[in-house]
Amino acid sequence: MIIPPLPTPFDQNGNLDAEAFRDLAQAIEPHVDGLLFYGSNGEGVHLTREERAAGLAIQTPRKPAMVGLMEETLAQAAIALSESESLGARVLVTPPRYYEANLGHDGLLRYFGGIADMGKAEVWLYHVPANTKAQLPLPVVAELAKHPNIGGLKDSSGELARMAFYASQKLALELYTGHAPTFLGALGLGAKGGILAVSNLAPKPYKQMLALWQAGKVAEAQALQAEVEPFGRVLAQGGFVLLKQALRHLGLPGGYPRPPYPNESPVWPTFKPLLEEFRARGWTVG
Amino acid sequence: MIIPPLPTPFDQNGNLDAEAFRDLAQAIEPHVDGLLFYGSNGEGVHLTREERAAGLAIQTPRKPAMVGLMEETLAQAAIALSESESLGARVLVTPPRYYEANLGHDGLLRYFGGIADMGKAEVWLYHVPANTKAQLPLPVVAELAKHPNIGGLKDSSGELARMAFYASQKLALELYTGHAPTFLGALGLGAKGGILAVSNLAPKPYKQMLALWQAGKVAEAQALQAEVEPFGRVLAQGGFVLLKQALRHLGLPGGYPRPPYPNESPVWPTFKPLLEEFRARGWTVG
Amino acid sequence: MIIPPLPTPFDQNGNLDAEAFRDLAQAIEPHVDGLLFYGSNGEGVHLTREERAAGLAIQTPRKPAMVGLMEETLAQAAIALSESESLGARVLVTPPRYYEANLGHDGLLRYFGGIADMGKAEVWLYHVPANTKAQLPLPVVAELAKHPNIGGLKDSSGELARMAFYASQKLALELYTGHAPTFLGALGLGAKGGILAVSNLAPKPYKQMLALWQAGKVAEAQALQAEVEPFGRVLAQGGFVLLKQALRHLGLPGGYPRPPYPNESPVWPTFKPLLEEFRARGWTVG
Amino acid sequence: MIIPPLPTPFDQNGNLDAEAFRDLAQAIEPHVDGLLFYGSNGEGVHLTREERAAGLAIQTPRKPAMVGLMEETLAQAAIALSESESLGARVLVTPPRYYEANLGHDGLLRYFGGIADMGKAEVWLYHVPANTKAQLPLPVVAELAKHPNIGGLKDSSGELARMAFYASQKLALELYTGHAPTFLGALGLGAKGGILAVSNLAPKPYKQMLALWQAGKVAEAQALQAEVEPFGRVLAQGGFVLLKQALRHLGLPGGYPRPPYPNESPVWPTFKPLLEEFRARGWTVG
Repeated sequence: MIIPPLPTPFDQNGNLDAEAFRDLAQAIEPHVDGLLFYGSNGEGVHLTREERAAGLAIQTPRKPAMVGLMEETLAQAAIALSESESLGARVLVTPPRYYEANLGHDGLLRYFGGIADMGKAEVWLYHVPANTKAQLPLPVVAELAKHPNIGGLKDSSGELARMAFYASQKLALELYTGHAPTFLGALGLGAKGGILAVSNLAPKPYKQMLALWQAGKVAEAQALQAEVEPFGRVLAQGGFVLLKQALRHLGLPGGYPRPPYPNESPVWPTFKPLLEEFRARGWTVG
Repeated sequence: MIIPPLPTPFDQNGNLDAEAFRDLAQAIEPHVDGLLFYGSNGEGVHLTREERAAGLAIQTPRKPAMVGLMEETLAQAAIALSESESLGARVLVTPPRYYEANLGHDGLLRYFGGIADMGKAEVWLYHVPANTKAQLPLPVVAELAKHPNIGGLKDSSGELARMAFYASQKLALELYTGHAPTFLGALGLGAKGGILAVSNLAPKPYKQMLALWQAGKVAEAQALQAEVEPFGRVLAQGGFVLLKQALRHLGLPGGYPRPPYPNESPVWPTFKPLLEEFRARGWTVG
Repeated sequence: MIIPPLPTPFDQNGNLDAEAFRDLAQAIEPHVDGLLFYGSNGEGVHLTREERAAGLAIQTPRKPAMVGLMEETLAQAAIALSESESLGARVLVTPPRYYEANLGHDGLLRYFGGIADMGKAEVWLYHVPANTKAQLPLPVVAELAKHPNIGGLKDSSGELARMAFYASQKLALELYTGHAPTFLGALGLGAKGGILAVSNLAPKPYKQMLALWQAGKVAEAQALQAEVEPFGRVLAQGGFVLLKQALRHLGLPGGYPRPPYPNESPVWPTFKPLLEEFRARGWTVG
Repeated sequence: MIIPPLPTPFDQNGNLDAEAFRDLAQAIEPHVDGLLFYGSNGEGVHLTREERAAGLAIQTPRKPAMVGLMEETLAQAAIALSESESLGARVLVTPPRYYEANLGHDGLLRYFGGIADMGKAEVWLYHVPANTKAQLPLPVVAELAKHPNIGGLKDSSGELARMAFYASQKLALELYTGHAPTFLGALGLGAKGGILAVSNLAPKPYKQMLALWQAGKVAEAQALQAEVEPFGRVLAQGGFVLLKQALRHLGLPGGYPRPPYPNESPVWPTFKPLLEEFRARGWTVG
């Protein structure tokens, strides 16, 4: 499966544009295998509680939905969990961050285990250190994988030694990578698919790479991996600011970042020709 | 001035204990020169918006009050700012964190400048990378210091090269350190005082060190600095979990951390004898 | 190809044991595709110039030989290069380290280009940041790949985004990974083989994994990768100290580390059962 | 005491210029309290063993001499120690670096203790992580301070929490900072003086700051600290490359870096006006 972590559109005044959010989701959904709201590129942490709920209430996904949950304590997590309940979505949960040094392994187990015990949604572990700057130690993952309500893991670190560990431990978790530049390497080490920012713009070559890999056409998958590597690498440099700019360029309702984030990315001049080339090949959504 | 960043008490069920919060503030206030709510040890990021407001509404400070403001966007900051308005407090503002890589110097200037422009409270810059894991680059500080509504800076990094820079640039900012183990070094490099977690427990020796320094009694200040260094160093290792445990030990209404954070710190066995010694010398609040 | 970075045996008094060195090389050579002397685990930086020369002079490799070259300046590199000349070996060159901040991209180009221009040996780039703590930026690699006398690259970082970059840029370099835990991921992203510390002890499963991969038997390769992952991961934790202890356990002349390094690794209790299991399966050299 | 870590002059062909080295030492010595050869800026790691010995043999210091010793094992350290024996110099010893992860606290104790046990020279601990990228943990320092032949410590990290720790533990070590931008902060926390790259160029204001501090003229010392902070901060950015360029600009025989290091620093345009201003005030050596 290839799933996009959708960006959350704001208008030029910094207000949540819920209708654009729904339109964007509907525009991308036919090209992908599911939708992730408020993931690493989703600016969920830029929203008030009411805005987060409003952004989900308007959605009408037909394919499996996921919601990122980036809270600091169990009390806050319980509230966030109730927001996504009506969607029947899985939740991707990141570790607490602020007082990480005072949490310890036991605290991490209490946090993820506590949310899973609430039973409101299937829990996936979500390791995205570039944004959270928090660690999710491997022994903690191994322990949490035993919980019946923890079903998967999205690892966006690009540290494929982590993926290799998950596979060798035969953890009862569905494994997804969030790091496009190493996508084929992650498949080789046991990932089942990708939850990839690039798939907001151009899911096609990643779906194709996954299909080639699954069909045992390794050399063709490798050729495609080499072709798309710059696209994923450069998009990661520009982050959600670049992603929204690229969506607007394709005519999609990606909207704008919430201030003080800028509307335009310094990486755009490098990314634009890659995007144009992908569009010329029929790989983009727009 | 010596000012404590107050912890925020929760009861054993993880509910905000607003009355304990007020009682704690009132117990400590006579011994210090002001109060900081929701600072680096204050678990402000563990509260809902309503809880944060309730925790402030009950306070009755007579000395200068400060409130930590740890948001990600200007829209969220505007809401948080309104919470602290009735206290007439200064706000200590940390930089956005999640998408730091996509913000840039201009974005940081827009963020801090934007809050200062709102005119609701005097703004202090707040650099506490151990918690925020975000940077506040020196050129950004130098630029922001020119804003008429940005009046001070709390630097908890302990990187005294930063303090030396602030002093050499003659920035129009009141400089405070948040790093107890290097307190005297910070004074030497231009800090005017400390906003120190240790001063929740034992403000006396730090007030004394400041007074000795200001009176030119350098050798005595140095002797005191050497005596209290372990207290500050070990408390920093245990963070707010240890601070609350120590307050409870002194009979003060420090309450408990919010789950999943633990009630007891692994550092307590090392810290307890230091605390007992300080109590025996009449240095503690309790 | 699977190639071991040989450790360099010292006796229990810390003296180079050149004969043990030769015997070790001869014992391992039949099981592998070449030999690397003074690589990341080879303690080349623990030897005097005369010792380094003596350790090479005694060798009688029949398969391709490589020599690690870990100097700081071109003048020192010229001397080190002459040591390995008689072996006709390729040299694996790491970047200067001490004053890395003052070298810059141009300095790196001058260093590697300068050694390649000496024409004494084919140069391979050698990125092993766990030991050197130095960076080898991707644009520098891309530029150096154009040099006719720079023919390959060993990347031990385990950062497979680097491997993905090399492949996408179609660099004229033979690519080898030095990171066993992600071996199959590296093959997926374009590596041709491994220069792996594990292959001093147990080359067989890695050779087999490579053969399975090349034969398109991906699922079998993946199963093997998952089986051997702990072996590589744990050996990396213990480094050359553990490697030598394991060689001695197998009855091979691995010798001892040079003091002040310890003879026994704290990781041995975790590694020993993995080694025993590999021996029981007939996978070890000894 | 203010002591310069002398750079080591090479000619434009990259050959050691021993006479220039001696001339440079003689030119600077009258302005300072001692001389450090092969320290953090000294390029000792860029020299062969023979060159290092030749560079010392020509020296005629009248003031206390120190020699940096940056080896990886005890066997190599014994050789390096013999080089500096005739000077009667103290040795400043950095920790082993390459296999730091496999050394452990015991290994560090064996290394420093072993050198001290050789009895050839008084040993000082030398912590300069910007170059060595190696750690010298505080408990190790505390343990080593008990050795009768370990007499001092140069800490160039600028992490003044380390200095505060040394002072609070009342370690039997003479404490020197190697970090000019925080010089006065280090004095406040117990340092006795500085071994400072800036004192190759302009020892005067640092000697004056130290004298003011010792005389209890704190406010004047602080004013001077603020004035010279940019000089130290910018020189640190440019390192030995900038230092040599500045020495040449002053007409002193600083020579050139050894290739592949560049002759000119990108930081020079920022540093030159600071140097000119210091010269105009009569603060420079030349």
